Amino acid sequence: MQAGEGKLTLVVIGVGLIGGSFALALKRAGKVGRVIGVGRSAANLARAVELGVIDEACSSAADAVHGADIVLVATPVGQMGRVFAEIAPHLPAHCVVTDGGSTKSDVVALMRQHLAAQLAHCVPAHPIAGSDLSGAAAAQYGLYDNRRVVVTPLPQTLPFAANLVTGLWQACGARVYAMTAAEHDGVFATVSHLPHLLAFAYVDMIVGKRDAERCFDFAATGFRDFTRIAGSHPEMWRDIALANREALLAELDAYRATLDTLRSELANADAAALTERFERARAARHGWQQKFIRGNG
Amino acid sequence: MQAGEGKLTLVVIGVGLIGGSFALALKRAGKVGRVIGVGRSAANLARAVELGVIDEACSSAADAVHGADIVLVATPVGQMGRVFAEIAPHLPAHCVVTDGGSTKSDVVALMRQHLAAQLAHCVPAHPIAGSDLSGAAAAQYGLYDNRRVVVTPLPQTLPFAANLVTGLWQACGARVYAMTAAEHDGVFATVSHLPHLLAFAYVDMIVGKRDAERCFDFAATGFRDFTRIAGSHPEMWRDIALANREALLAELDAYRATLDTLRSELANADAAALTERFERARAARHGWQQKFIRGNG
Repeated sequence: MQAGEGKLTLVVIGVGLIGGSFALALKRAGKVGRVIGVGRSAANLARAVELGVIDEACSSAADAVHGADIVLVATPVGQMGRVFAEIAPHLPAHCVVTDGGSTKSDVVALMRQHLAAQLAHCVPAHPIAGSDLSGAAAAQYGLYDNRRVVVTPLPQTLPFAANLVTGLWQACGARVYAMTAAEHDGVFATVSHLPHLLAFAYVDMIVGKRDAERCFDFAATGFRDFTRIAGSHPEMWRDIALANREALLAELDAYRATLDTLRSELANADAAALTERFERARAARHGWQQKFIRGNG
Repeated sequence: MQAGEGKLTLVVIGVGLIGGSFALALKRAGKVGRVIGVGRSAANLARAVELGVIDEACSSAADAVHGADIVLVATPVGQMGRVFAEIAPHLPAHCVVTDGGSTKSDVVALMRQHLAAQLAHCVPAHPIAGSDLSGAAAAQYGLYDNRRVVVTPLPQTLPFAANLVTGLWQACGARVYAMTAAEHDGVFATVSHLPHLLAFAYVDMIVGKRDAERCFDFAATGFRDFTRIAGSHPEMWRDIALANREALLAELDAYRATLDTLRSELANADAAALTERFERARAARHGWQQKFIRGNG
């Protein structure tokens, strides 16, 4: 297939929910011509071609990036170092490299290590569009409509590169925010990574109980919602936890400190302190929900 | 209004979601004739009469129970001691007393203290039907369809009394389970009370952060579900936490132990241990969900 006149050639490395949906949105927006998909599973790539998510499948990232204008690395963060190292010698001079990882400081470090000569063209990014689905079949139009995307440009990143990535995400319908990788990782350790660890730990604690079966028998809707994220992908969350380890350890300690205070308030039957704490949390949760519904309704 | 022939006279003390829905279900099932509602809010009782949830409003529990066959105390647990003390001298000899509290050991203790002469007619119970709604207007038909109700009869409870309460809840469409008050409190500390405290503590921790506003800005659907129960009623949960303090402190310590292990696995970057823990939790959560969907369709 020919590249559309004046349209960008996009290489998506890791054709799943994130990378596949990015390709679909940009094709529909007319921002990209040829889309080349790279992955380890030939079956998944074949499915991606079948579904029109990509135009061409390629088993080698090095080969795929030769004619690329923009490369999205949408593999698990754990594989990005290998991918960056593989594509580095083959990237066209003008080519912009971005990613879809949920953590950014570690991706920045990998870019500094493996893409030292291309840092001016590197634009780390995190599209916030979670889902339990995976594989090319999970790719969907509209996944990014009104979703948030955080870009964390490096000091070396050229404005044109940051603008290109920002513009492409906006063309996908997303709202783009810029911050430093460290700021990003702190925020997401708080609102996403910590709760996942807390939910995994909670369910795992029950599994270890003598009366685990009876406990699960009487778990209801509160349990269902509180533990939904404990059904998330173990390897993905292991990678995220390890990738954002420093920020996450700090969050775990902050949480433990709050929990210890709460425990002593309960041990001392300090009704006033408990009420104040619960009211503060409830008010914040209600305020958040109103804004969230307005922003995502 | 006349009592239906051979039908029970029900007194509901605390006409809200739990008590009001119990009355509606039993009227529809034809199990009760006259329903007398008792509460501190005249406006709420008037609304309950208007809605047909109760037949008569009464501001005094002592007066209301004179002709009662069965009394459901559906107030917050924190008010039950006062209610039991108030009705004790006025209960007909045959009258059965039950409650709708989320904790049972403390209700049993209050019954022993205030209803010593009526223990044979006391049947503590916990209908598991949560909701953020409250007041008579929240009462609804079908609230208990296929829901679980735990009864925790005392050693002194006469079989006829336990059978009456069990039968009435079954007439409401509920599945009734019997266990001891201590067993009940342990199970619910694990699957309900602990997660509420964990969710309250988590949101409260964020409120205390310098970048709280930005954190909330980027919180998404995982956060939404994990923290939904942090929007629960502060006084109600303060009462539940204090009422089930011993069991809850034990759960908090067990959770902290799991969290400490998880923290050291993360600090040591023990990928294998983290994966194993997350997989164990995910498998248990998936297994639970399948059973829950089958059971609650």
